[in-house]
Amino acid sequence: MAHPYRAPLADMRLLLLQHPPTQADADVQVLSELATFAQEQWAPLNATGDAVGCSFQQGQVSLPPGVKAALRRYLDGGWLGMTLPEAWGGQALSATLASFAGEVLSAANPALSMFAALTTSACKTILAIGSDALKETYLPRMASGEWTGTMCMTEAHCGSDLGLIKTTAVQVEDGDYAISGNKIFISGGEHDGSANIVHLVLARIKGAPEGSKGLSLFVVPKWLPHSGAANAVHCLGIENKMGIHANPTCTLSFEQARGQLLGKPHEGLKAMFTMMNEMRLVAALQGVGLSERAFQQSFDYATSRTQGKALDRANQSEGQADALVCHADVRRMLLTQQVFAEGGRALCHHCALLLDTVNAGGEQGKSAEKMLGMLTPIAKAFLTETGLESASLAIQVHGGHGYIRDNGVEQSYRDGRIATLYEGTTGIQALDLLGRKVLGDQGQTLLAFTQDIRHLCEIIDQDTAATAQVKAWAQQLLPWVTAWPELVQQIGVKAMDNREEVGAAAYDFLMYSGYVCLAYFWLRTAHAVSEAGQDFDPIFLASKQNAAAFYFARILPRAHAHQAAMSSGREVLSMGG
Amino acid sequence: MAHPYRAPLADMRLLLLQHPPTQADADVQVLSELATFAQEQWAPLNATGDAVGCSFQQGQVSLPPGVKAALRRYLDGGWLGMTLPEAWGGQALSATLASFAGEVLSAANPALSMFAALTTSACKTILAIGSDALKETYLPRMASGEWTGTMCMTEAHCGSDLGLIKTTAVQVEDGDYAISGNKIFISGGEHDGSANIVHLVLARIKGAPEGSKGLSLFVVPKWLPHSGAANAVHCLGIENKMGIHANPTCTLSFEQARGQLLGKPHEGLKAMFTMMNEMRLVAALQGVGLSERAFQQSFDYATSRTQGKALDRANQSEGQADALVCHADVRRMLLTQQVFAEGGRALCHHCALLLDTVNAGGEQGKSAEKMLGMLTPIAKAFLTETGLESASLAIQVHGGHGYIRDNGVEQSYRDGRIATLYEGTTGIQALDLLGRKVLGDQGQTLLAFTQDIRHLCEIIDQDTAATAQVKAWAQQLLPWVTAWPELVQQIGVKAMDNREEVGAAAYDFLMYSGYVCLAYFWLRTAHAVSEAGQDFDPIFLASKQNAAAFYFARILPRAHAHQAAMSSGREVLSMGG
Repeated sequence: MAHPYRAPLADMRLLLLQHPPTQADADVQVLSELATFAQEQWAPLNATGDAVGCSFQQGQVSLPPGVKAALRRYLDGGWLGMTLPEAWGGQALSATLASFAGEVLSAANPALSMFAALTTSACKTILAIGSDALKETYLPRMASGEWTGTMCMTEAHCGSDLGLIKTTAVQVEDGDYAISGNKIFISGGEHDGSANIVHLVLARIKGAPEGSKGLSLFVVPKWLPHSGAANAVHCLGIENKMGIHANPTCTLSFEQARGQLLGKPHEGLKAMFTMMNEMRLVAALQGVGLSERAFQQSFDYATSRTQGKALDRANQSEGQADALVCHADVRRMLLTQQVFAEGGRALCHHCALLLDTVNAGGEQGKSAEKMLGMLTPIAKAFLTETGLESASLAIQVHGGHGYIRDNGVEQSYRDGRIATLYEGTTGIQALDLLGRKVLGDQGQTLLAFTQDIRHLCEIIDQDTAATAQVKAWAQQLLPWVTAWPELVQQIGVKAMDNREEVGAAAYDFLMYSGYVCLAYFWLRTAHAVSEAGQDFDPIFLASKQNAAAFYFARILPRAHAHQAAMSSGREVLSMGG
Repeated sequence: MAHPYRAPLADMRLLLLQHPPTQADADVQVLSELATFAQEQWAPLNATGDAVGCSFQQGQVSLPPGVKAALRRYLDGGWLGMTLPEAWGGQALSATLASFAGEVLSAANPALSMFAALTTSACKTILAIGSDALKETYLPRMASGEWTGTMCMTEAHCGSDLGLIKTTAVQVEDGDYAISGNKIFISGGEHDGSANIVHLVLARIKGAPEGSKGLSLFVVPKWLPHSGAANAVHCLGIENKMGIHANPTCTLSFEQARGQLLGKPHEGLKAMFTMMNEMRLVAALQGVGLSERAFQQSFDYATSRTQGKALDRANQSEGQADALVCHADVRRMLLTQQVFAEGGRALCHHCALLLDTVNAGGEQGKSAEKMLGMLTPIAKAFLTETGLESASLAIQVHGGHGYIRDNGVEQSYRDGRIATLYEGTTGIQALDLLGRKVLGDQGQTLLAFTQDIRHLCEIIDQDTAATAQVKAWAQQLLPWVTAWPELVQQIGVKAMDNREEVGAAAYDFLMYSGYVCLAYFWLRTAHAVSEAGQDFDPIFLASKQNAAAFYFARILPRAHAHQAAMSSGREVLSMGG
């Protein structure tokens, strides 16, 4: 009964056409092979992994058998090294292509994709700040898929507020550290799918300052690499949770476990944030994958299931009932999923282009880093929130059948629900965006982004080949773009009296930003489509125009409500007497 | 770890104060006893029922043991007869009080409340259209809780579109019918919690017209009442579904099962709609209960869990971290749940008052029936949609902990997800509202409702005791009220060209209607609070003013987006090439 997943390669090609990657052909070939792998090897295991789940016995976690095999096929196939440097056995795929790959893996099997993303991300952190010795010990075996990685931050009393971390690190004679403390919510913290598990652990060196500035990062393996001895890292249990059943969420106890400092002392949080920012983009891609998967499932159901006669005579068949897609309200739901999936993909693609520019270094890299810093919380929070909406709509399109396990859409709804929580909740992203990334640089990066949008609108205005519709959308977008920094200014002025004005406006500012961003990317797509040429199916291209029309008419107006809400200030958030 | 449920009796008293019921004191006493029962006997079994679920073996369904006992305590306690006439062993509670009772039961244990609601509803249908013989056979044993009831409509190929029903009925020698066919999604269709199960089954008498006009309704018991013999009703299996695990969703096979005609031949759908309308109000109450439960769980967590320092210095404690509720964005989420719970309760209460008026008969009854007919789809769809939002926000307030089974909020999210699907999806309610209830009577009932709202606004305008804030809210509401019938007119004109304009606008029209309705009820509450007097805790009353302020500033503006969307017409709902 599992619904097949189709990697949206044509949509990805359409984006690549707008900004051809430097090493395009080879990369696209890798992506296409990965897509086949994900479709054939990972997607069919998604339902099994959910139904069977992980089991915990005497400190050890077993993955569901089929899922474990699928994970091994990925790791043994060398896919994990895709984005790592060739020097460490990787394939050095561009961030642009890696972004598409991340979406495909997550859409095919969210639980499995977390193993891949966390390991890649741990590798990159070691690459960025690890000593040569650490790199040589860990990278070859992680890049080859022999070992997997984790990120250990959360403790029972602190999730969003990492400054409260209690896990300690005490230096021992050989320069290593003894790590002690309990961590919770560790994805893939213990399992039987890899020969070793490399934990990156946030802890406080004895005597370090309180708060987040006293945290350091450590590499703490399950098995000590040189001696092969077991390290004192014990799994106390796994969580019984709503979804993502095939990826164990572990409670780990570090009992004077042997660890090595990664990067400089007391700079652990900064280092962890490198990893975290990467994981936030991964979560954004998960949101896109959620919308894409929901759209595919809903579209297939809506075109095959018949129920009720269409109101539009032109859509009426001779049968007793017409396909669900003949009902306008069903199309409203499908189009909502489509614009979130495809608009979100364009936003993530833009972030990936920026990441490639950052990685290339230089002045351009610096300004790209700022832009990426601002767009990351928008992508993470907005695309996971809209991913949830898409997943919920998939159930709605299926009616009562959507509530039944076998039909698969309810699993996406449960699996996807984690996405607005981990790697920083929507509220945390919103504060990061408005407080740090926008007000924190006096709105300069936001202004630069609005100039990019205006620039596109001008090009469209001058473009004699652009359709009247595309020109009208550009005009429709401009007032929202104008209002965006003005809203920041209003909030900034109020916040001088009380900083809580930032907290009171943050969520609605983020959602407003998300809707305006997606309008920009839909405008770009609609404009690009007219120049896409004969390489694409005309029906495919027309469907992009339809989706853009839907977005501007029916989704962008939601920004109104967020504008009104954020303008209303903190006073209306009083509770009690 | 189960979170205790507290029936919101003070809020219910505040509503009763505005429209004192005729037999107030005795009824309120019953409600208060029911609340204690629900809190103590039903709420604690909610998590167990979810974890254990129902089991199916050889055609028989077993309820989870504790759940079965809790159901029996309800049935044996005579609660089921609460709203039934005294002549049949009931207590003839007013619809107003029954509405509160329905919310409390559903919030305490949604799975158990479905047994109660379906049985009550089956009784009322038998009462309304059954022969004396049917009444005498079934009502005493159903009202006493000895037997439970079901509603059998859906078949594998038809859910929303009942005209396609294939189940047949053939009259046999003694005047009874032999019913043959398969029904799916029958809640409580087979279980071991009652001595007999009385199915109300939609079927087509051989030779009857095709479509929905050829359907008749039959009473088909699991055990034949007079002989005690087993009827040919077989349970083929139960669904493995996302939530509501303690209530089995059954596939039933009727194999020339013995049934008796209920009401007139070919008038089955009309009769079933009496039952359905009642169940739609029950679903609306489920939405309110979902929001209320989410609010209680979130509020308790947000006041006890500390994380991060408050941005508002006035809220900062001396500790390392402040309670979640000190963060503005957390209060935004709590207030959203509160306004949906309490505003939704007021809307349901209004519907219940109308139902009492309908039941009293006469001219007033007739106009109340129209009004209730219009408000029912709004209450059903809008309050279940907002209930889902509240449940999702409860997870968000809990952060990663919300994703863990033990904390209880994820169960509400899963259980609640059925509410926008059953008893007619949101899309079906939207078509019923805009097509049948509004355009179908040339907007007369809507106009009458807007006059009620204007009347309140005038009273407030003249009321020297009303605060400036309440007066401002009344003014803020008026333009929305004015636009409401205007939107109908626009859609109506466009629909003359193509009826699909109705389908294209219906969902957004319904949501717009919901937001405006709740604004009306929040205005009423805010106005009533100033006159509520010393009988209420001043902190409680102030919290209503705060919630109203939040609603007008941050929730009502959402209606903008729906207005824009519905005005954009069917063209933007094109898909493909």
